[in-house]
This record gives sequence, structure tokens and C-alpha cells, in this order.
Amino acid sequence: MESRSTLPTPCLVIDDAIVRRNIASMAEYAAAHQLKLRPHTKTHKSCFVSQLQLEAGACGLTVAKMGEAEVLSTVCDDILLAYPTVDAHRCERAARLAERITLRVALDSFLAADHLSEAAARIGSTVGVLVDVDLGYKRTGVQSDEAAIQLGQHVSNRPGLRLDGIMTYTGHISGDDATQTKAFEAVAARMSRLMDEWRAAGLSDEIVSGGSTPAARHCHLAQHFTEIRPGTYVYNDMNTVHGGYCAFDDCAARVHATVISNNVPGQVVIDAGSKTLTSDRCGPAPDSGHGYVTEYPQAKIVRLTEEHGQIDVSGCSHPPALGERLTIIPNHICVCVNMQASAWWCEGETPRELRIDGRGLLV
Amino acid sequence: MESRSTLPTPCLVIDDAIVRRNIASMAEYAAAHQLKLRPHTKTHKSCFVSQLQLEAGACGLTVAKMGEAEVLSTVCDDILLAYPTVDAHRCERAARLAERITLRVALDSFLAADHLSEAAARIGSTVGVLVDVDLGYKRTGVQSDEAAIQLGQHVSNRPGLRLDGIMTYTGHISGDDATQTKAFEAVAARMSRLMDEWRAAGLSDEIVSGGSTPAARHCHLAQHFTEIRPGTYVYNDMNTVHGGYCAFDDCAARVHATVISNNVPGQVVIDAGSKTLTSDRCGPAPDSGHGYVTEYPQAKIVRLTEEHGQIDVSGCSHPPALGERLTIIPNHICVCVNMQASAWWCEGETPRELRIDGRGLLV
Repeated sequence: MESRSTLPTPCLVIDDAIVRRNIASMAEYAAAHQLKLRPHTKTHKSCFVSQLQLEAGACGLTVAKMGEAEVLSTVCDDILLAYPTVDAHRCERAARLAERITLRVALDSFLAADHLSEAAARIGSTVGVLVDVDLGYKRTGVQSDEAAIQLGQHVSNRPGLRLDGIMTYTGHISGDDATQTKAFEAVAARMSRLMDEWRAAGLSDEIVSGGSTPAARHCHLAQHFTEIRPGTYVYNDMNTVHGGYCAFDDCAARVHATVISNNVPGQVVIDAGSKTLTSDRCGPAPDSGHGYVTEYPQAKIVRLTEEHGQIDVSGCSHPPALGERLTIIPNHICVCVNMQASAWWCEGETPRELRIDGRGLLV
Repeated sequence: MESRSTLPTPCLVIDDAIVRRNIASMAEYAAAHQLKLRPHTKTHKSCFVSQLQLEAGACGLTVAKMGEAEVLSTVCDDILLAYPTVDAHRCERAARLAERITLRVALDSFLAADHLSEAAARIGSTVGVLVDVDLGYKRTGVQSDEAAIQLGQHVSNRPGLRLDGIMTYTGHISGDDATQTKAFEAVAARMSRLMDEWRAAGLSDEIVSGGSTPAARHCHLAQHFTEIRPGTYVYNDMNTVHGGYCAFDDCAARVHATVISNNVPGQVVIDAGSKTLTSDRCGPAPDSGHGYVTEYPQAKIVRLTEEHGQIDVSGCSHPPALGERLTIIPNHICVCVNMQASAWWCEGETPRELRIDGRGLLV
């Protein structure tokens, strides 16, 4: 029987106690501000972790892919696909899943609404729709209040669709408390104008969905949100540490690696490369290397190839030894989890295998 | 029944004819220069593609992980683990696999040799060993001829091990023909000194293994190599295109994606983000974006988030339409393949599912 410290490397090790604390903390924030919490499951892609979030009061789940919605429908009957259904495959599968559970889709075009409507009407199901409104992230979302209302009205008139409200993603808002407070005052002003017009047009405001992990705890300042969709908070990573949204001790998921070579002076090589840690840089600290070596704060992971991580240890008074195990907090945990078929879930020192249920699905 | 042009997106589509042509071309080079070809399977992680390479004359396979060796041992009985076995798990599994097939391990330390020897001696198997010598890539490998010979002698004296020769990885050598020719003249000089001393010490030179895809076709210039281990050549990607090692038409594996949003002026968004294409930049052209959109050469994939790819289409006379399918050549196909549970293998327009057999394995 393996213990946490003898697991084969490279591997992703998740600490049960930290996860539960992170889940409880966000649930408390949401409850304190009468916000519903619909965690984005892209971070963990796990039925088990979804259940922990639901048991802690989450109103439902958010997914990015239809395959994830299908997998997680085994543990949750209220799912938001925060992704437009333009193509025939997504529409067909969304309409079919809506026969079994409450499924909502966030979309930002007449075409997506029309294709989803056709599929739902043909199958005889009803899919909830949130209109995706861009508040400045400039990725998806309609660009004006007028466009939002036109799309809301269009959805309201289409068979097989039920307009349920609005979704926005405030991924462009980050920074310290003062910065975010100011940004959310602007969001509140914009949302007030939009919601006044939206309601005046007789459109449903049952759900107004916002939030990312960096912005989650400021969403109450915008007043109009009814729910938030943070994902990363469940595990945290160097993005959230360097962003100032959590402490090192809140990082629940860490990569265990072994030093497999130390021939090049000033360098050791670990068995975690880009196929384990991914090439994602740390957003708030792009020059900080490819993850944080917890045992050697002076070490810097300077280069990743597919299965090798090269660590500059020239700043370490005692460099890691050949064969030594290192524990690394990844830059971006959502993509790192996605690399693993399984992680190890640890209560204390005892690990059990946790399948990443929703990983690698085609659509 | 899906056709190539109706497959659900995002997906990876592999063209049978191009793969077979790439395999034949590298096999011809190797045969013309009396080099054995031991393809690195990190690129495809597939039993089926391994079989195509073996049928075309490959002498065996190269892997980076023990799990991949175990999976591919179902189709090949001669495998090189081009990765040091320092930890107990790799040693144990390597020693066990060597009971069934010819397994060699490339290693660069006494510790790795000792641990592997202990496991093999205990189990009663014999593992072949290549001494990993660094010729300038500065990742793994012993740093001097003296160190190589000392390690070779140590391996020769250890139970359970059989010294078979030398491995080197010339990943630092790239560029045009003249540049590589000059670099390989230096490699040849260095190898000549090393091999003279190596043979004078009575050490086995049965295998002298070199090569990466960029450097593969210059390996004959170094004279001493007996085999090469290119990987990427089987599919190719924008790294090999921009590096000058292949043409666009030699890129066998392409991501199919759908335009799912076009609200932001000058931009379309596709359903392929960093969880499909990965964040790896193109080495020879780091500012070229996150892959090449074959239908729109003026388009540039400027930003990836997990499931979204943002494409700047301001340079296109007719931008891609909402719902349109795009075909993208990834920057780095080895990591892109590793993101998919399955790819679609196409003979003509007819796809069949190709499992990525060796993907996501823990060790």
C-alpha cells in the first residue's frame, strides 16, 4: 500500500482537508451575500469533487463541454453549459440531456439560439438559455445592452428554449481589493442600466450569473448577480497565490516529482515536464518559472520539455539530491489536472485514486 | 456515420496517407545510411501507429515513460526507455518488463544504475543499458567522456544489467542544412574521441543512439550512430514547418474546430483552446500565434484560454463565418496528441476512432 510520500511520480496529489476548507470558504462567502454558487467544474472534472461542492450548498454545476455535462449529470441535475451551442453536435446532445436534467446554455448569437431551438423542438425537450453579455473580457458575449435584449427576445420566441437570464464572465477583473472594488462599481453601473432595460422588455431575470475565482468575492458589489461560477478556488494554484487570492496553504493540488538527473552544474532535472505541469505561465508573475518548488523556494523551474523539468538550483544553499522527491504547486491547476488520467486523493497520508472523470472528452 | 467534415469539434484528425508517406520517407533515409530507426512514440502514443512504423522497418521503439513501454510491449518486443530509472517504481516496472521483452534504459548516474540493478537482480531479469551522454543540450546526460566511461564500467559490473552502448539527444542542433552539417562535424569529432576511449576500455558499442526530428537526417554525418530516434516526423507540426524540416502538406495531424462566437470586432472564437492545442509556442517562430489556420493564412490565433481560441481576423478579406469549421496545424503535435483521449484516423474522407493508448499514464 502506497503512502503519500511513496506514490509513483510524476503524480498529482490532492489534499482532502484543504479542498474541503476551500469549498466551505467560498460557500460561506456566497451564503453571506445571498448569492447562489454554481462552481465551474473545469478545474477538477470530477464527480466526487462535484458532490463535495453540492453537499456544501452549491445550487448546481458549470461546465465548458457537453461531454462534461453528460458525465456530471450522474451526480447533478442542474447544469449550466457556459459555452455557445453553434454546431449540430453540441445542440443535439444538449437537447437530449435536457430531457433528463435542468440544462441551461449560455449563448451569444441568433445562430446558436436557432440551432439549439431546432434540436430541442425536434427532440421535445426544453433548454434554459442565458444570454452571454461581455462586460469587457472581449472573448464571447454580445457587446451592447441593445444586442442583449434583442437576443433575449429572440430566445423567448423560439420553441424548445426558455430564457432564464444573463451570464457574464468578468475574467478581465483582477488585482487587489481596492482595484476590484472600483472595477465592480463600474460593473454595477453597467449592470443596472442593462437590467433596467432587460426587465422593461419583460425578459426573465431569474438568473444573473457572474464570477471567476479572482473576481468571485467582489461579485456582491455589483448587486445584480444571483449566482457566481468560480472554478479554480477548489484547488488554487500559483495564479491565485500570486494574484493575492489565496495563501500557499490553500493550494490543495500539488505535483509530486522526483529528481532524475543532476549532471549539469547548477541544475537538477525532475520527471515533471510540459505533459505534467503544462506550458501555461503564471499570469500575475510570468517570469516566476513553471511552478513553485515548495521545499526549495530559491529554486526556479526554468524550462519544461515534454517529460523533463529543468530546475535552476544555483540559488539553493543545498540543492535537491538525485532521487529526492519534490512537491510543486503548478501555475495553472485547471490545465494541470486535465493532463492526468487520475490524481491521488489524500486524507492525511493515505491516498486513493481519483479518476478525472470529465477529462479528454471529445466535445 | 460521420465523415471527416462532420466530426464533432474540437477534434484531432490524422491523415493516413500523409502518415504513411512520412514513415516511409524517414525509413528510406535510415536505410540509405545503414542506420536503424527506433521512432520515439511520445508523438503518437499509439499501438497502431507503432505497428505502421515497425512494418516499415523500424528496429524497435523509444518511449519516455514506463507506462508507455508496458502498453507498447503488446506490439513490440524491443523498446528503449530513454529516461533514467532513479526511483523504485520505474526500476521495479522496468525489471519486470525485461522479463518479457528486450528492454533498454538510458541513464546518466551511478544511482540510477544501482537502483535498476537491484530491481533486475532481485526479479531475475536483465535490462540493457545505454549511457546517456550530453553533447550540448544540457538537460540529462553525463558531461564528459571520462564520466561516460566510468558509468559504462560501473554498469558492466552490476548484476541484472547489460551494457549495450551510448545514447545522446541532439535537441540543441537545428537550423538549415549548412548549419546542421557544421554542427554534426563537431558532433562527429567529439564522438570519435569518445568512441575511441569507450572501445579502448572494452565497453560495448553495439548501440550508439542519436537523433531528434530536426537533426535526424544529418545523423549519418556523425558516422558513429547506429540508430536514430526521431518522433515528431510521423505527424509533423508548425515547429517542423517553421524549422524547415517539412512542408505544410507533410502535416498529418490537424485540429478541426468550429467558430462559436464572432461578437468582438476583428475576432472570431473557436472551440479549441489550451486544453486542445496546448500553450506551447512555436519554437522557430514564437510570435506566429497558437497554430496555423489552414483556410485563412492571414488569421492569427492570438490567445488561448482553456476551451476558447481567439483568432485575430482583421487581416482577412473575408473572415470565417459563425459556425464555420477551421482546420488548424498545431505548433507542437506531441503535446497536442497528449490532450486527446482519441483522435480520428482518416483514410480519405472516412474516419475511425484512434485511441491514444499511452496517454495519461501515471509514470
